[in-house]
Amino acid sequence: MTVRGCRAAALAVGDELLDGYRTDRNSPALARFLGERGWSLERIQVVGDEESVIAAALVELARDHALVLVSGGLGPTLDDVTRHALAQAAGVALEPNPEAWAQVQAWYQRTDRTPPSSNARQALVPEGARPLENVQGTAPGIHMRMAATDVFALPGPPREYEPMLEAHVAPWLAGQDDGGRVRRVQRFHLFGISESLFADQVAGWMERGCNPLMGVTAKDGVLSVRLLAEGASEQAAQALLTARTTEFLGRLGEYVFSEEESDPARVLGAELLSTGTSVTTAESCTGGALAQALTGVAGISEVFREGVVTYANQAKVERLGVDEELLRSHGAVSGPVAEAMACGMAERTGADLALATTGVAGPGGGTDDKPVGLVWFGVHFRGRTASVERRWPPVGRERIRRWATAQALLLGLRAVRGQPLD
Amino acid sequence: MTVRGCRAAALAVGDELLDGYRTDRNSPALARFLGERGWSLERIQVVGDEESVIAAALVELARDHALVLVSGGLGPTLDDVTRHALAQAAGVALEPNPEAWAQVQAWYQRTDRTPPSSNARQALVPEGARPLENVQGTAPGIHMRMAATDVFALPGPPREYEPMLEAHVAPWLAGQDDGGRVRRVQRFHLFGISESLFADQVAGWMERGCNPLMGVTAKDGVLSVRLLAEGASEQAAQALLTARTTEFLGRLGEYVFSEEESDPARVLGAELLSTGTSVTTAESCTGGALAQALTGVAGISEVFREGVVTYANQAKVERLGVDEELLRSHGAVSGPVAEAMACGMAERTGADLALATTGVAGPGGGTDDKPVGLVWFGVHFRGRTASVERRWPPVGRERIRRWATAQALLLGLRAVRGQPLD
Repeated sequence: MTVRGCRAAALAVGDELLDGYRTDRNSPALARFLGERGWSLERIQVVGDEESVIAAALVELARDHALVLVSGGLGPTLDDVTRHALAQAAGVALEPNPEAWAQVQAWYQRTDRTPPSSNARQALVPEGARPLENVQGTAPGIHMRMAATDVFALPGPPREYEPMLEAHVAPWLAGQDDGGRVRRVQRFHLFGISESLFADQVAGWMERGCNPLMGVTAKDGVLSVRLLAEGASEQAAQALLTARTTEFLGRLGEYVFSEEESDPARVLGAELLSTGTSVTTAESCTGGALAQALTGVAGISEVFREGVVTYANQAKVERLGVDEELLRSHGAVSGPVAEAMACGMAERTGADLALATTGVAGPGGGTDDKPVGLVWFGVHFRGRTASVERRWPPVGRERIRRWATAQALLLGLRAVRGQPLD
Repeated sequence: MTVRGCRAAALAVGDELLDGYRTDRNSPALARFLGERGWSLERIQVVGDEESVIAAALVELARDHALVLVSGGLGPTLDDVTRHALAQAAGVALEPNPEAWAQVQAWYQRTDRTPPSSNARQALVPEGARPLENVQGTAPGIHMRMAATDVFALPGPPREYEPMLEAHVAPWLAGQDDGGRVRRVQRFHLFGISESLFADQVAGWMERGCNPLMGVTAKDGVLSVRLLAEGASEQAAQALLTARTTEFLGRLGEYVFSEEESDPARVLGAELLSTGTSVTTAESCTGGALAQALTGVAGISEVFREGVVTYANQAKVERLGVDEELLRSHGAVSGPVAEAMACGMAERTGADLALATTGVAGPGGGTDDKPVGLVWFGVHFRGRTASVERRWPPVGRERIRRWATAQALLLGLRAVRGQPLD
């Protein structure tokens, strides 16, 4: 396979991607997706909703790349012109596609609705191209050939784009000749270490050309690490990966909470469901984020029955039986109050595991001894209660709440797994 | 000045911008910088550190744009080839520039150091171009003409790039004749109408070239609309905008909940704080998302004291006093139960406004008469209670929860504003 053969380009379409307030999130996802499969993203273009501009960009990208991924502009509105641009670039007609129309109708039929007339637009496909099913939305994708180049056009919303990469582009890539190179991937998800400390620990492992190549992304305080080893044989790739994995765990193992799942709520949820452990939440600074994260796990109602958001001290007293004297002497943001919240909620609900949060999310409310970023966690598990303190920099109310939510979930995970909390 | 005159393009250079782990932060900053000055960023290109690729992209972008901003590739190392690409694209020689060399030396002299020989590279400038001072780093920028296009090349690090936009590009923009075009913007944020139905309503208003030009983005069920009118005078632009705005509100006014703020929680939060209205939440299917959204508003603790997540029926009975007979006869997902939840929470907390949610978020749990996507909302406001039903397509657990959260917040807003709930 030629070098050109492993080169891909991204074309992101949408006026809103050029206003400086929203950015193209699909191309980075594509770059990681391709990287794991031995392909490289060589170029990203972002253009507005203008048919001729999109078509010209397509022609130009198709010239130098074996694969072009277009995202966006497949909606039902008149400013969605990607389909027309594809036809223009390929020099073919745009025609109503029965298969695509059936997909649009099926989407509406799930709720006994009929598609508005504007949706007929979404069933238009360039002559000779095939529609790609979208299980997350109304807009079918499109797979089209332009000379020696394969073009995939997928919807812009990441929740539709990313699953369609897996469903439609991954199989196509798998069918390409990759010159007999074998790849092995290992993932680790970490919490409790900053990106900069992490970087100090792994020094040169992230440089381009490293084998194994290491990539890391950060979300809500979770660092997701990917090690990609490449070799001429399975054994060669695996040997490289095993060696690096051993080194990695030696340096950073204490921060790893999962190898499969980056979402602490899903990890804890799975643990609770598999062990039949019931859970409840008593939140102050996280304000419901903890309950929301847990109840986001499908099937969780088997083990999660209720939670409370006791924002005011009065609510902590009335709903959780926190001693007013405790609040007076230690303040709401303290270990004793965090423990009393967890304990009180466990008693009222009979749950095995009770998680409590109380802290200063900011922007206001910080003091010298209780600054913005200070959060106390209460963990009650089957009769035993403990509290843990975290002090984060004042990185903003929302981030502190997200970090505190992840921390609470992972403290719950440690409790259920019988690991030390701190 | 021609339309072309107000169109700019960005060219971001760097292999690291194509690995999916780091992204181009300069182009969004540029888009905002230009937008505030009446210019528009029409295109973003991201390419690797490859001289011929950079040069080809430059030539192509210069063809259609009066201004091209290049970022990155100005460092001292061999993989920094932007200078060479500029010279290649302009078809001129790259020569040592005394002024640029003086700037590099000055940077080092500030710390009593002398530049390493590799830095001589940073003093190379295309023939006829001028170096731009960089007060944040060693790499001077470059301002070069290519036919009718002005090209500015600035260093990649945002802490160097953004100040140089202000120092060098802003004065250039100020010197441009913008043909006296004046722009006026009006925003609307809507909820309760799908993108498709919206598109049916506004027909041709979104076509490119329309004046006013309409753009729309969707997030968590909220449609954010921007109308941009352009005219030869303030009066002309405003007249166009007012006419379209009137038409728009005539067709879609019922769905508009704010002109300033797209986040329903912030809109309701501001309304509650300004009117001193206390609020509480009783959630089933939203699982804490409603409390989280409200407590995400800084200062909300003045009016939000507590909320509950009563996931199980037993919790609805024990915490909210929902009548077991009501649950038996109507089921948990029903208007009467939604009202009983809101009412019960209002009684227990004494809050002016109580919002309740109960629904089927899926993926499981749906039945023929109560399918996935059915959500009942209970709204209690100062002694009066009502319920509202919504049926959404099965778009996934998370999206249904997000839509339900936004809907509950906006029902609360309607209640406080004394508007009909449905």
